[in-house]
Amino acid sequence: MYLVTFLFERQESLGVLTSDRQQIIPLETIIQQSTPGTMVEFIEMLSQDSAGNSDAYFEQLQKAADEKNGLSLNSVKVLAPIPRPPRGVICMGKNYQEHVQEIAEATKQAADIPKYPVYFHKIVDQAPGHQDNIPNHNAITKALDYEVELAVVIGKEGKNIPAEKAEEYIFGYTILNDITARDLQKRHQQWYKGKSLDGTCPMGPYLVHKSAIDFPPALNIQCYVNGELRQNDNTRNLIYDIPHIISDFSRGLTLKPGDIISTGTPSGVGMGFKPFKFLKSGDKIDCNIEQIGTLTNIVE
Amino acid sequence: MYLVTFLFERQESLGVLTSDRQQIIPLETIIQQSTPGTMVEFIEMLSQDSAGNSDAYFEQLQKAADEKNGLSLNSVKVLAPIPRPPRGVICMGKNYQEHVQEIAEATKQAADIPKYPVYFHKIVDQAPGHQDNIPNHNAITKALDYEVELAVVIGKEGKNIPAEKAEEYIFGYTILNDITARDLQKRHQQWYKGKSLDGTCPMGPYLVHKSAIDFPPALNIQCYVNGELRQNDNTRNLIYDIPHIISDFSRGLTLKPGDIISTGTPSGVGMGFKPFKFLKSGDKIDCNIEQIGTLTNIVE
Repeated sequence: MYLVTFLFERQESLGVLTSDRQQIIPLETIIQQSTPGTMVEFIEMLSQDSAGNSDAYFEQLQKAADEKNGLSLNSVKVLAPIPRPPRGVICMGKNYQEHVQEIAEATKQAADIPKYPVYFHKIVDQAPGHQDNIPNHNAITKALDYEVELAVVIGKEGKNIPAEKAEEYIFGYTILNDITARDLQKRHQQWYKGKSLDGTCPMGPYLVHKSAIDFPPALNIQCYVNGELRQNDNTRNLIYDIPHIISDFSRGLTLKPGDIISTGTPSGVGMGFKPFKFLKSGDKIDCNIEQIGTLTNIVE
Repeated sequence: MYLVTFLFERQESLGVLTSDRQQIIPLETIIQQSTPGTMVEFIEMLSQDSAGNSDAYFEQLQKAADEKNGLSLNSVKVLAPIPRPPRGVICMGKNYQEHVQEIAEATKQAADIPKYPVYFHKIVDQAPGHQDNIPNHNAITKALDYEVELAVVIGKEGKNIPAEKAEEYIFGYTILNDITARDLQKRHQQWYKGKSLDGTCPMGPYLVHKSAIDFPPALNIQCYVNGELRQNDNTRNLIYDIPHIISDFSRGLTLKPGDIISTGTPSGVGMGFKPFKFLKSGDKIDCNIEQIGTLTNIVE
């Protein structure tokens, strides 16, 4: 089940893709409940209902969608599935072994696997969607970098979630490109500012409900810049896997429906090359994750 | 002008204090516009109107309040002025010189003044207000610490704000206690998780409109634990002052009405003592800032 936030006749709406992925069926035409205004409201609504986030519910929704005639994908503008993440994005650093190594080499530090997960925050005003441009931020950075990541969207409120129950708290998955200003990331000591520039959190194209993906996800993940393969790994190689992340991060800290946790990037970022391969105006970035799709953006 | 978010008969409302600070006048009885539901909605509403955030507007509001009979302060529960900060809190580390020194000694690192401001994020689900308890988080930290800070609330949307125009973008000020789990702050490398546990962002008691405070604020700032003076400085001693912070942080990053920037804490935190003086159950913390008031909380 592929969920989409889209713009049609200037109206932001929610929809689901038909099984052949040719059409968008507006959510309001296939759900019984009152229509939620945003994806996060939809997730919250379902979290109130024990059957809401179930495989059966989404099977039924898919069936209803496939019986309808909707909008062709070409006729709408696909937005980020959660265009304005209410609480930003919870991100992870150093969560693939080879990426830890490349960063250590680039920064001349020890390539130690973190003893505990490394979390940081990304403020997001407006997340670009598939085929949206990304600002080049030339005036403030000379080191804009890409990072393809599997993002997990939380499906219900929880705190102190045991790892073995983490799956219950997931709503679904999407692709996130954690665009980073490496120079700002470094000079402010904490990574926050270098991770939070406007327009540096492209996401999408779709939010895939968890029922479509075996748990834990073992998905090929790739990033291409201008057609050149830069990052290539599999989400099974996360150092801290999704159950561990959800359990560890939620210790003493309440996760909310619609929260986004981005699970870190594999090796092959621009900073990992000698010389560096940072982004420049006109670059086309394709982020692929198996079973989710491709998120394409162009640097302005 | 002291603005307050309060609970009365189970209803969360906005109000202003009378000049003698004895009564709360519900906002709905003194404003012409439709009543905003939250403080952030009020700030957003005013930001749409060029006269909205002016000294004259707030003088008039104060006059209207002083002519009314309202609720006695004792009859309501004062909440944090922004109980659910929509975008969390933008925080600053190492922004008073003596605090840089004490942290350097405690962590056996160089006491270098940061060459650039150090920003980090605090997720806030629900901010405790004045006289609310703070969870002790005994199960996950043995090093809970206090940090009194002057928090700046943003009044209108802005990006690439010049330092000399920063004041225009401020709505007002409040007191924030940036409660920190020192052990988590350290072990996860980035400070984020150790700063974001539930209930660790007490704020209040009031939001003071900027018209009441000379700019830039030069205010005595103190923290007492069980009556013992621990922190004692003046906000004129910020390493990076408020115009610089607003200008620097907003480079390439849009600030929104209601955003909260906490400007860092002076020396005297629990970690600065030998042996450490971390918080324990039953501790009473009083955070004072001149012209704003006292924010009192007790550790559960």
